[in-house]
Amino acid sequence: MSAYQEIMTGLSDGVLTITLNRPERLNAWTGTMQVEVETAIRKGGADEAVRVIILTGAGRGFCAGADMNGLQSIQASAGADYNETRPAAPKPQAPSELEKMFPGRFGHMFACPKPIIAAINGPCAGIGLILTLFADMRYAAAEAKFTTAFAQRGLIAEHGIAWQLPRLVGEANALDLLFTARKFDGAEAERMGLVNKAMPGDELMEYVHDLALHLATQVSPRSVAIMKRQVRESYFQSYAASLEVADGEMEASFATHDFKEGVASFVERRAPAFTGR
Amino acid sequence: MSAYQEIMTGLSDGVLTITLNRPERLNAWTGTMQVEVETAIRKGGADEAVRVIILTGAGRGFCAGADMNGLQSIQASAGADYNETRPAAPKPQAPSELEKMFPGRFGHMFACPKPIIAAINGPCAGIGLILTLFADMRYAAAEAKFTTAFAQRGLIAEHGIAWQLPRLVGEANALDLLFTARKFDGAEAERMGLVNKAMPGDELMEYVHDLALHLATQVSPRSVAIMKRQVRESYFQSYAASLEVADGEMEASFATHDFKEGVASFVERRAPAFTGR
Amino acid sequence: MSAYQEIMTGLSDGVLTITLNRPERLNAWTGTMQVEVETAIRKGGADEAVRVIILTGAGRGFCAGADMNGLQSIQASAGADYNETRPAAPKPQAPSELEKMFPGRFGHMFACPKPIIAAINGPCAGIGLILTLFADMRYAAAEAKFTTAFAQRGLIAEHGIAWQLPRLVGEANALDLLFTARKFDGAEAERMGLVNKAMPGDELMEYVHDLALHLATQVSPRSVAIMKRQVRESYFQSYAASLEVADGEMEASFATHDFKEGVASFVERRAPAFTGR
Repeated sequence: MSAYQEIMTGLSDGVLTITLNRPERLNAWTGTMQVEVETAIRKGGADEAVRVIILTGAGRGFCAGADMNGLQSIQASAGADYNETRPAAPKPQAPSELEKMFPGRFGHMFACPKPIIAAINGPCAGIGLILTLFADMRYAAAEAKFTTAFAQRGLIAEHGIAWQLPRLVGEANALDLLFTARKFDGAEAERMGLVNKAMPGDELMEYVHDLALHLATQVSPRSVAIMKRQVRESYFQSYAASLEVADGEMEASFATHDFKEGVASFVERRAPAFTGR
Repeated sequence: MSAYQEIMTGLSDGVLTITLNRPERLNAWTGTMQVEVETAIRKGGADEAVRVIILTGAGRGFCAGADMNGLQSIQASAGADYNETRPAAPKPQAPSELEKMFPGRFGHMFACPKPIIAAINGPCAGIGLILTLFADMRYAAAEAKFTTAFAQRGLIAEHGIAWQLPRLVGEANALDLLFTARKFDGAEAERMGLVNKAMPGDELMEYVHDLALHLATQVSPRSVAIMKRQVRESYFQSYAASLEVADGEMEASFATHDFKEGVASFVERRAPAFTGR
Repeated sequence: MSAYQEIMTGLSDGVLTITLNRPERLNAWTGTMQVEVETAIRKGGADEAVRVIILTGAGRGFCAGADMNGLQSIQASAGADYNETRPAAPKPQAPSELEKMFPGRFGHMFACPKPIIAAINGPCAGIGLILTLFADMRYAAAEAKFTTAFAQRGLIAEHGIAWQLPRLVGEANALDLLFTARKFDGAEAERMGLVNKAMPGDELMEYVHDLALHLATQVSPRSVAIMKRQVRESYFQSYAASLEVADGEMEASFATHDFKEGVASFVERRAPAFTGR
């Protein structure tokens, strides 16, 4: 893959792993990292060889939030430095409807046609936590420490987390996490529904790899891409509109290779060989 | 009750039980079953003697999804057979606002003024799972196996499940279940909030019958019918609009027999005798 | 503080505690209590010395619902007495957008810029339960008994609970609690996500006080007030609109004392001294 400065990428068996790679700073978020993660996800989304994307952190952290040097220079300049620190990644010429519906730094992750799994291996704070909310599924080390952090820095509910968090964990948990900015661990994150599952840290990467391989081989990539779009679009649709999309997509799928293969492999009791077409 | 081919119905103590009845095929869903279930629910909704509806499966399954013969003929004809297989049930001449809000195969279940309880006794897959999402409450055998199935057949999130599932179990679980099409059991379904409660299979029907009897005798059927409509309409209402409906319905209820009876039975410490008026 | 008839109030360390005070009636709700609670919350919201509000009940109950004498006189008059019993509290001359978005008896609690914590020490029924849904966080004695009550009185889903409850605990639990009107305890309320946490009753007030002190001293009151508004407004916003608010508020916060103090106290590893400016 291309050479990045602050992330690493690796592809095997259809699984693209993107690793935040500033381990000495617990992978604190920078403008460079922003551009590189977005670039890698956009490339993976467009690459036929990629079926699933894993997002994780190098070393003992996942992402400790915005880099403090960045925050301190904003603080020292009372905000004047902020625009300078804004990242700029290559944007598509014709963004999808979904990307228009979810603008901002991370909306491109919802628009990516591949499933994105966050493997939260360690501390996950502030913008690092927001990053994970744009993954499709989240798995965490039970002992990983999480915090929203904002209220302890005099900041607010940034980047759309005010919209997302109550929909994911309910209003009561969302206000608790935002107001208190308290630390909580992966096990509690699982109980609140913030992560799909928490487990001992030394089992995390194997679990997530197995899941990614399942997605890469056992289900139709065409099905997954359509479902991912259906769910996110449904947030701003009436039931009737969502159903109309579903009925159209169902009929369209009847003519595909993957439907033929899905029924045939089931009847013949063998593993499927999906192509995404 | 009327004679059906692929379901059984029974009424006692105000509880209408509808049993999917193709046990040799794990009650796989057919066009005939679609028409019969809808007919039975519409009749039950209009029948004063019915206060609660239970939906369950004969034998060891609940509903194993679309009948494979149907899917294979659609596959063999690359979709051309699909319209032939579409069921047609008797529709009301003047559908309620709620039924217009929730069109499609199962929207009539939301429009039914009686509570519908799914008793999921065994395998529950694909369209069988969707069926249960239109019940008001779901109870499952802890060992019952569930799966969305679609992504393993090259299909998509059918019949509005893309709209419903994230609202019921949160986005993280919804995408997991849709993308992976993995099997999960009733106990996990309870932890995700997909079913109200899971329990050993041999306790399920007694538990659900007791609950149905409670609903048939201890609460006002008028209250339940209005609440059912209020909750489903609220999905597309502002808070202010939902409150206006509630305030109007509250005042209207003050003039009813059931309010009089509800207060009197409480003060007199006796069982209520609600009439629905 | 002012003299109230049916509540008590106390302020210490930035924490305003409002105690429903009709212990001989399990703090059953009356028109007077409605006016007094609203008055106390509006005053607390405007008082710079108040950073957090706790709502609890005197004696062994939290709030047993509408006072039965009130309901019986409405019943005896078939509703004609209802308008007489409606409370009237002082309303702001220019209600905020949020207060217009959440009208009715309790919308002012969402509009209050301070976090409101319900400490549910005992029975919590009907309108008492609705009251807690307008708090930002809820903590309960594990043995406290809850019930919606409405369906057992021939009433309906009152005051917006039809809108709120499915969003808080999911549709399946919401319909269960509304339809059955069954009693459930604090421990189950925690499992459903209705309360943030349940615990032995004799630990409740100390736990809630510690939490309130944390909010009063460790996080920026400016941050909390903005986040509270962001989350509630987000329910009727597109993601894009919510993000636009967040981006504007983030930039505005860069110029504040509390942001400066939040970064400085973190870097200097000391407790913050937030002012709300």
